[in-house]
Amino acid sequence: MVLEMKVPHGTGFVALQPLIPVFLSYVLSFVYIGIYWNNHHHLMHAARHVNGPILWANLHLLFWLSLIPFATGWMGENHFAPWPVALYGTVLLFAGTAYFILTKTLIARHGNDSTLATSIGGDVKGKMSLAAYAAAILLSFAQPWIACALYVLVAIMWLAPDRRIEHAMTE
Amino acid sequence: MVLEMKVPHGTGFVALQPLIPVFLSYVLSFVYIGIYWNNHHHLMHAARHVNGPILWANLHLLFWLSLIPFATGWMGENHFAPWPVALYGTVLLFAGTAYFILTKTLIARHGNDSTLATSIGGDVKGKMSLAAYAAAILLSFAQPWIACALYVLVAIMWLAPDRRIEHAMTE
Amino acid sequence: MVLEMKVPHGTGFVALQPLIPVFLSYVLSFVYIGIYWNNHHHLMHAARHVNGPILWANLHLLFWLSLIPFATGWMGENHFAPWPVALYGTVLLFAGTAYFILTKTLIARHGNDSTLATSIGGDVKGKMSLAAYAAAILLSFAQPWIACALYVLVAIMWLAPDRRIEHAMTE
Amino acid sequence: MVLEMKVPHGTGFVALQPLIPVFLSYVLSFVYIGIYWNNHHHLMHAARHVNGPILWANLHLLFWLSLIPFATGWMGENHFAPWPVALYGTVLLFAGTAYFILTKTLIARHGNDSTLATSIGGDVKGKMSLAAYAAAILLSFAQPWIACALYVLVAIMWLAPDRRIEHAMTE
Repeated sequence: MVLEMKVPHGTGFVALQPLIPVFLSYVLSFVYIGIYWNNHHHLMHAARHVNGPILWANLHLLFWLSLIPFATGWMGENHFAPWPVALYGTVLLFAGTAYFILTKTLIARHGNDSTLATSIGGDVKGKMSLAAYAAAILLSFAQPWIACALYVLVAIMWLAPDRRIEHAMTE
Repeated sequence: MVLEMKVPHGTGFVALQPLIPVFLSYVLSFVYIGIYWNNHHHLMHAARHVNGPILWANLHLLFWLSLIPFATGWMGENHFAPWPVALYGTVLLFAGTAYFILTKTLIARHGNDSTLATSIGGDVKGKMSLAAYAAAILLSFAQPWIACALYVLVAIMWLAPDRRIEHAMTE
Repeated sequence: MVLEMKVPHGTGFVALQPLIPVFLSYVLSFVYIGIYWNNHHHLMHAARHVNGPILWANLHLLFWLSLIPFATGWMGENHFAPWPVALYGTVLLFAGTAYFILTKTLIARHGNDSTLATSIGGDVKGKMSLAAYAAAILLSFAQPWIACALYVLVAIMWLAPDRRIEHAMTE
Repeated sequence: MVLEMKVPHGTGFVALQPLIPVFLSYVLSFVYIGIYWNNHHHLMHAARHVNGPILWANLHLLFWLSLIPFATGWMGENHFAPWPVALYGTVLLFAGTAYFILTKTLIARHGNDSTLATSIGGDVKGKMSLAAYAAAILLSFAQPWIACALYVLVAIMWLAPDRRIEHAMTE
């Protein structure tokens, strides 16, 4: 796991209090990385063929995910200030777009009638997430907490049981 | 391995002395992570089916385990002071509970008559560990060293050869 | 992923500006590590036999790749100054040479008529890269930006679809 | 890879000079971890059965290997001073002993007539290494450079092609 929290210097409970925003952003990012990890695992498991564009689309996704610890640390250490919250949303937006591109390169290789294409479907959840991230970035400068609430809502949407994945796994 | 010890500045043996509590908490956490690693490996190896709840129960366990380095560092650098020792126990308590939930979601998917359910059994060790962690958290504020002794005892209990696992492996 | 960016202290957009060169060198190194990761994966997948020299040639390659984060950090934090840019090129030159040695030990084990030897071929791209790194190291002291442009050009050359790899994968 | 080098603050070649001992100890530890990685890989690959003692012997070995980055950093940053050089040898001695114990638990499980037991044989190299580490620890306080020379010699002895491993791999 790439996420990390710095050990505080004090001994008492008071030393932990300034870490609360750091911990909250840690939890949020842990959930996001977990969602990507699970979904990515299923996506790659369903893939029958790999080609150059798929490999690079995959690396492109990993690039944006690799920036999550940086965005998490900046947001947590600055108590969810506007710019850090906007940057966090930007990284999520690019990661979500990269995931979308990865599904498109996979469908292009497997065909529109493939099981993989059918299981991805219209990807309403993916598109809704991108719209939510974009809205959250703009809202960061007005009310950063609304932006954070949007990040939490998107995460909950993905945590809820997904029939498509359940179905793919039982086959 | 996620555990880490900072390199001291001095050159002599004296420079290592303040690291003794850091090293002791490092050893304890290494053993705990090793126990989880082994048990988790066997549990997942015995699993025949996976579903959404199992994946999230697994991620939930990983979340609490990912906090062990933080709790270890805080406890070691503060020479086993009350609050850090209590936090360490809290992380162990949540990790143990997460492991318990994971076994329950696995049994729910495989059925009470499955080999997996039989090999987990009544899980007396798991329940005793949770009770010991809870007691240790309370004792941290009176006598932190008794709490630490409890953490060590639980670790030894798990290190002792487990007939269930041995049995499962020979099959 | 071993690459890392330190979280800045300020809260505003201004705090991110000094990170621009750090981010640029991060992107460049991410792409290079990605290229090595993909190519190495295909090379090892195509290998039918392994012996001592192959194992050590592989470890030799990993050694130089393990220095990329260090060279990346030094180059980014010093805004592409001559010596850091030259060191970056030196690490790339040694990594490229190590990859070349690895292909030679693999061909020596599999024979000149093997599929592996044929798919590696004359390795014009590999030799051109080594020449570009060597030129870039010398140019670092005159115009570090020309050296950086060479690093980017080599990366683009490797990112472009490679018919050899595509071909090997479809088989 | 767990080994790491801190990025220096200066821009010129002079900034790299104090890193020379850090780099030398980095190279030495990289080679040692590589040797353990290769040998451990072959040992585990040759194992047909696993039991509790083997798992714990394996974890015991990982514990001592996990301390190598700490010992490496302390030795490199203190320019091979007596105590750090002695600590480095101590970690190598315990890691070597842990590897020896692991081979014994593996032989106990597979029998003295097993292919695994035959391929390990009398383990002269392993015993010679332990003796060299013990001698180096004592020599650290008189002449640390002789201790370092011993560490290098042991590493070279393991890097030299090993007929046992070659033989095991071709089978």
